[in-house]
Amino acid sequence: MMQIEESIKSYGKKIDKLLKEIIPPDRHDFLGEPIWHHMNTGGKRVRPAICLITCEALGGNPDNALYFALAVEILHNMFLLHDDVEDGDTMRRDKPTVWVKYGIDNAINAGDYMVAKGYQSILASPVSTEKKLKLVEVFTLTYEKTVEGQALDINLRAAKDITVKDYLEMVRLKTGYYLACGMVGGAIVADISDTVVDSIWELGKNMGPAFQIRDDLIDLTYGKGRGGVIGSDIKEGKASFLYAYSLEVANIEEKDKLIQIMAKPREDTTDDDIRWVMNLYDKYGVKEYAQNYAEDLIKHAHKTIEKLPVGNKEVFREIANFMAQRTA
Amino acid sequence: MMQIEESIKSYGKKIDKLLKEIIPPDRHDFLGEPIWHHMNTGGKRVRPAICLITCEALGGNPDNALYFALAVEILHNMFLLHDDVEDGDTMRRDKPTVWVKYGIDNAINAGDYMVAKGYQSILASPVSTEKKLKLVEVFTLTYEKTVEGQALDINLRAAKDITVKDYLEMVRLKTGYYLACGMVGGAIVADISDTVVDSIWELGKNMGPAFQIRDDLIDLTYGKGRGGVIGSDIKEGKASFLYAYSLEVANIEEKDKLIQIMAKPREDTTDDDIRWVMNLYDKYGVKEYAQNYAEDLIKHAHKTIEKLPVGNKEVFREIANFMAQRTA
Repeated sequence: MMQIEESIKSYGKKIDKLLKEIIPPDRHDFLGEPIWHHMNTGGKRVRPAICLITCEALGGNPDNALYFALAVEILHNMFLLHDDVEDGDTMRRDKPTVWVKYGIDNAINAGDYMVAKGYQSILASPVSTEKKLKLVEVFTLTYEKTVEGQALDINLRAAKDITVKDYLEMVRLKTGYYLACGMVGGAIVADISDTVVDSIWELGKNMGPAFQIRDDLIDLTYGKGRGGVIGSDIKEGKASFLYAYSLEVANIEEKDKLIQIMAKPREDTTDDDIRWVMNLYDKYGVKEYAQNYAEDLIKHAHKTIEKLPVGNKEVFREIANFMAQRTA
Repeated sequence: MMQIEESIKSYGKKIDKLLKEIIPPDRHDFLGEPIWHHMNTGGKRVRPAICLITCEALGGNPDNALYFALAVEILHNMFLLHDDVEDGDTMRRDKPTVWVKYGIDNAINAGDYMVAKGYQSILASPVSTEKKLKLVEVFTLTYEKTVEGQALDINLRAAKDITVKDYLEMVRLKTGYYLACGMVGGAIVADISDTVVDSIWELGKNMGPAFQIRDDLIDLTYGKGRGGVIGSDIKEGKASFLYAYSLEVANIEEKDKLIQIMAKPREDTTDDDIRWVMNLYDKYGVKEYAQNYAEDLIKHAHKTIEKLPVGNKEVFREIANFMAQRTA
């Protein structure tokens, strides 16, 4: 566990250095400033580091994967930036979000710019034309699927009767491809066969939901760094695993009240509402169920790893464990 | 002129057919519906048609350029869709804009999806790996530069003293690359040398501003189909050529009043304000100056065309004339 954290730290520095070249913070173009305001809200550059760790573990040269890894980090942050506008979130890691500070217009446009810069970073990779094109394909597929997941997320929020199945489809799209993307890119740079690449996608489909369910749980325990508030997801009416599962197990009166609270505009949700939902979750053991569900997904992920036709499976095990245990 | 219009018509049908395959209108994914609502607000598919016409005129097979042409059309519409959110425009071609009908969240997300789909369309092109990668590069460069132009557009609007030079830089970025992009892609598919490709980019840098200046003029004559309103740009405080030039020629009192009117929120701009600005434009012959400026740019474009090292220059002449004379 320590080893992977150290790798993330040292690779993170490389990523930040290259990012400053690809998107200079000090150009007066109305783009560098909002983008760096966002990038400085934190993030441990975990996703690009996983790309580089995978590449190295599979015998590739991580320097050749650096530009792709950066693209993954840029895309991840672009989604956070656009999501903040879409969700109306005003704070991210205790700082005002980009749209609050620079306006909705600049926030949308800065996000658009990040996508272009992500592609440019890939195009600058020191790899063959064939590999470069494969990396563009992987990146585009991830981008597409993540946006499809976001579409479900936005619109399920308004729906009254989300099921656990809906939820899982949504997070598989929204986070599964995303988690696999860096590993897939690292494997491509390391010249690994298409069969292995397919298995890594599979891995993401288990790890993504596991990670997201944990994220849902974190909102009820530590809060998500939006001013340290507990229960933001309830205020937002977010289609969480906990909400979806509660709808399946609660009785009719509880279900009605739960839907009513989730449907309230953020500013109308009271502390009593949040307490009521937390009590409901306790009554039905919703948090424990979620925790167990996430652990099962991780077990599945480990099974996929054991079947991976590569010599060094240990790195995948470490990544899976790390992603399963870290706090957002 | 007739010939090019007929080509646009017949190619436009091919583009719409392929678009329905790439983004099915009837999938219940919360993406096809808003995107097709936007696509159906019109557009003559001029940009993709120009790509295909160029490809054919240079001896290429336009069918091989079809996927790239579609990507250009998708990107163009994505920009319109995001611009509508950024500018707060509520109507486009007499229909409500996507954000008005589906919410800001779905509008941003649908635009993001269009970018992914644009790239996917290019990746589906029946051309060699090398060409495909070149097309991705051209598309990405265009995407990047157009967003840079949009950043200037958004932020110059708030600035008090925009110059004609600022304006020209902004529109060169925002529309120049965009106009050249289709022709460049068509030329790449037709196997044309890099030197010619560079000249086509150059062509776009003259045609783009010419086209945009005409668009600024149209706002004062026919209106832009936003409920047929004349003077939307004045209400919006848009950094138009007319505004920038007026700031250079008007006296201090006029300049102050002009800035004051342009800075007003859209809903506070009165009909009297718009009339006052129109009179100011008349007093200094601003519209005539703009018209002449656009014509000079077209002349420059024609000079670039005469130097193009290709046999069939006629198609470029036709495209330049067509773009210079059409109404938005």
